[in-house]
Amino acid sequence: MTEAPQGSAAGYAPVRAVPTAVEAAMRRALLLAAQGPAHGPNPRVGCVLLDPDGRTVAEGFHRGAGTPHAEAAALAAARSRGVDPRGTTAVVTLEPCAHHGRTGPCADALIDAGVTAVHLAVRDPNPLATGGVARLRAAGIDVSTGILADEGQELLRPWLHAVRTGRPYVTLKLATSLDGRVAAADGTSRWITGPQARAHAHTVRAQVDAIAVGTGTALADDPSLTARTLDGGLFEHQPLRVVLGRRGVPDDARLRGTGGALLHLPEHDVDTALARLAEREVRHLLVEGGPTLATALLAADAVDEIHAYVAPVLLGAGATVVGDLGISTIGAAARFATRDVTRLGDDVLLVARRAEPTQNLAPGSDPGPSPDARSAQPRQNGRPGRPTQEEI
Amino acid sequence: MTEAPQGSAAGYAPVRAVPTAVEAAMRRALLLAAQGPAHGPNPRVGCVLLDPDGRTVAEGFHRGAGTPHAEAAALAAARSRGVDPRGTTAVVTLEPCAHHGRTGPCADALIDAGVTAVHLAVRDPNPLATGGVARLRAAGIDVSTGILADEGQELLRPWLHAVRTGRPYVTLKLATSLDGRVAAADGTSRWITGPQARAHAHTVRAQVDAIAVGTGTALADDPSLTARTLDGGLFEHQPLRVVLGRRGVPDDARLRGTGGALLHLPEHDVDTALARLAEREVRHLLVEGGPTLATALLAADAVDEIHAYVAPVLLGAGATVVGDLGISTIGAAARFATRDVTRLGDDVLLVARRAEPTQNLAPGSDPGPSPDARSAQPRQNGRPGRPTQEEI
Ligand SMILES: NC(=O)c1ccc[n+]([C@@H]2O[C@H](COP(=O)([O-])OP(=O)(O)OC[C@H]3O[C@@H](n4cnc5c(N)ncnc54)[C@H](OP(=O)(O)O)[C@@H]3O)[C@@H](O)[C@H]2O)c1
Ligand SMILES: NC(=O)c1ccc[n+]([C@@H]2O[C@H](COP(=O)([O-])OP(=O)(O)OC[C@H]3O[C@@H](n4cnc5c(N)ncnc54)[C@H](OP(=O)(O)O)[C@@H]3O)[C@@H](O)[C@H]2O)c1
Repeated sequence: MTEAPQGSAAGYAPVRAVPTAVEAAMRRALLLAAQGPAHGPNPRVGCVLLDPDGRTVAEGFHRGAGTPHAEAAALAAARSRGVDPRGTTAVVTLEPCAHHGRTGPCADALIDAGVTAVHLAVRDPNPLATGGVARLRAAGIDVSTGILADEGQELLRPWLHAVRTGRPYVTLKLATSLDGRVAAADGTSRWITGPQARAHAHTVRAQVDAIAVGTGTALADDPSLTARTLDGGLFEHQPLRVVLGRRGVPDDARLRGTGGALLHLPEHDVDTALARLAEREVRHLLVEGGPTLATALLAADAVDEIHAYVAPVLLGAGATVVGDLGISTIGAAARFATRDVTRLGDDVLLVARRAEPTQNLAPGSDPGPSPDARSAQPRQNGRPGRPTQEEI
Repeated sequence: MTEAPQGSAAGYAPVRAVPTAVEAAMRRALLLAAQGPAHGPNPRVGCVLLDPDGRTVAEGFHRGAGTPHAEAAALAAARSRGVDPRGTTAVVTLEPCAHHGRTGPCADALIDAGVTAVHLAVRDPNPLATGGVARLRAAGIDVSTGILADEGQELLRPWLHAVRTGRPYVTLKLATSLDGRVAAADGTSRWITGPQARAHAHTVRAQVDAIAVGTGTALADDPSLTARTLDGGLFEHQPLRVVLGRRGVPDDARLRGTGGALLHLPEHDVDTALARLAEREVRHLLVEGGPTLATALLAADAVDEIHAYVAPVLLGAGATVVGDLGISTIGAAARFATRDVTRLGDDVLLVARRAEPTQNLAPGSDPGPSPDARSAQPRQNGRPGRPTQEEI
């Protein structure tokens, strides 16, 4: 938070940081932002303009590349109904940009409009866009940051990751039986999960920039990898379809049919493949490949989020969802942090994310009194690994 | 529902089947019943006595073997406050027994007390106890059955199963990684799931008659198989501890320490083992064994319910939760019906039950347009199993 200046160009005092009014506006701005497309190179941003009494004057959000930024949309909305934005307070989910892209810098638009205070949720880590806060402050505008920062970061999670790391946010989709199998012994896998899980997976497809499979899945299943609605129609947005691997994609493959563009990367190196996708402005990659690709991504520590659709089914044989990860003991397990659990018909969707490095169960972190430490306890009574701290 | 007789011994008209009053009393009776112990040879039963205006006169429930049945408890409660139960209506969760057990037949107790109507949730399938309804009706009492029957059956599910089939209701507990593993490559398995999942599993232990493991788990893990509270203390009820298999249980095994009695069955035949347990009045058996025992029970189709605790962990190697079940294709998968999904910390508990035989996905049932049928479609474009009904 910053000190509030005592006045403004229009003679109004800016809206004070009355948490409820600004927070309410930020919640609204976040909802607006979420109406923009989750896919695409640009972040989802929402903006609400408040008058000095904290009443909403206008709102706007970004509708995708090539359309106005949220701040510009809100300013235009104000003007279109004859309201002068001078002296208003802007509540924006992301730091206004300071660079000239397809539109002018939003920071300048706010300054030029005579806005006197700006409240932000999230700072922009984009080296091209950053500097918005400094520019606003230099113009004498009261800026506070971090309002509902967690919600703001959640909304922009894949985008923020991509901008910070220079590589796509990778969501790995798994659809398994309770015993971790993706196919029966004879290779049949349709369908382990039920229609509600499959419908859900299609809505996820409609929110990402690209979907990848390995050539193994491309050849075995001839998937179309389109994002389809419940009635089988296509969502408006179709993600880029990516096939990883050296074998060719057949001429009559469904992947070449209606749907997103097809990109074949004859590549096994995960870092290279992700870099190639980042070059194509892929911020969020959904991986629906088979066990080979999943294992390669996990081994390269490239998985940011797991969507595990688990069916109440036991197979007892068949391919398991991941192959050897080089993990030999339970303390070294690839552990993710559960974000969400949703029942979908008979199946359950578990959404889990890369565990934060501070968690003591994360691989490679300080073990503390971890399972690893326990299982490595000295023998007692002549039997190995007998636990003393907690029995079964 | 039956016709209501026009009068009664006490000159009162019995409470008419005004659904709301009787249903409300039945809900209360079910809640009372649930206060009784879930384990033990006797069913949980609750009873509410209503006066002719539908007001509660007294209530009672069964507190376990050797204590009064619910009807007797309710009648005694009425009398202890000086209320004559003549002319009241009894709302009972289970058909009153007609046999002489440790207490006299409840049907007779109700008749002798001058009760004029009885509303039941569930008929008693126990051949020893059945006949209560006939006896009541022969005495001129108005009897209706099936009030909140589903809730009543749910409450008594393991008990009803045991009485109907003559063998225990088997709940199979599985604790796995997302890739279906119960241990890492080196055999370490503590802990795949977190403390909340383990605490939950202990509350389940406190509700069953017996817990079984195979000798493999008994020797590898030296479990105590006690039901413990969060602070490590013992629940009052400790289930019978059962070890299945031919190898011996070491003299210094924790299984011989404080806790329920130990029963070692040097037996591989599942039917025989379950029959032996039924002889010992085990109605609900919780199986916490390793993959070998789980596989044997599944292969014998002896699993009624699965409690799958799934952790957001990938191991990539190590023992899988079940071994070969003789399932070669997806349409023959052992499919259960999900009853409940609960998040427990980072883990998820999926409770699933034997799928009803009417469901077309149950193994061995009419396949209809099942996954099996789909995957067996004729080849197209020279690639096998290409789906036409629903693409990936
Ligand atoms: N239930 C599910 O969720 C699900 C999802 C997808 C697939 N499946 C099943 O999985 C099976 C296919 O399994 P899969 O493992 O072969 O499929 P995959 O992982 O999609 O494809 C594996 C192939 O991708 C190529 N590849 C790309 N990057 C690689 C890397 N970094 N390391 C190694 N290879 C790489 C290799 O082929 P090249 O030799 O061409 O380079 C490799 O053989 C099918 O039966 C399918 O039905 C199930
Ligand atoms: N994560 C979990 O949920 C979990 C739970 C339990 C165990 N575990 C792990 O599982 C491992 C032990 O696995 P396990 O499969 O050996 O354990 P198990 O299934 O508990 O025991 C297997 C043994 O039980 C006997 N047995 C009893 N009935 C049988 C039947 N119908 N068919 C065949 N054998 C029968 C056999 O021994 P005899 O030769 O003596 O007859 C067999 O070797 C341990 O590493 C343990 O930590 C994990």
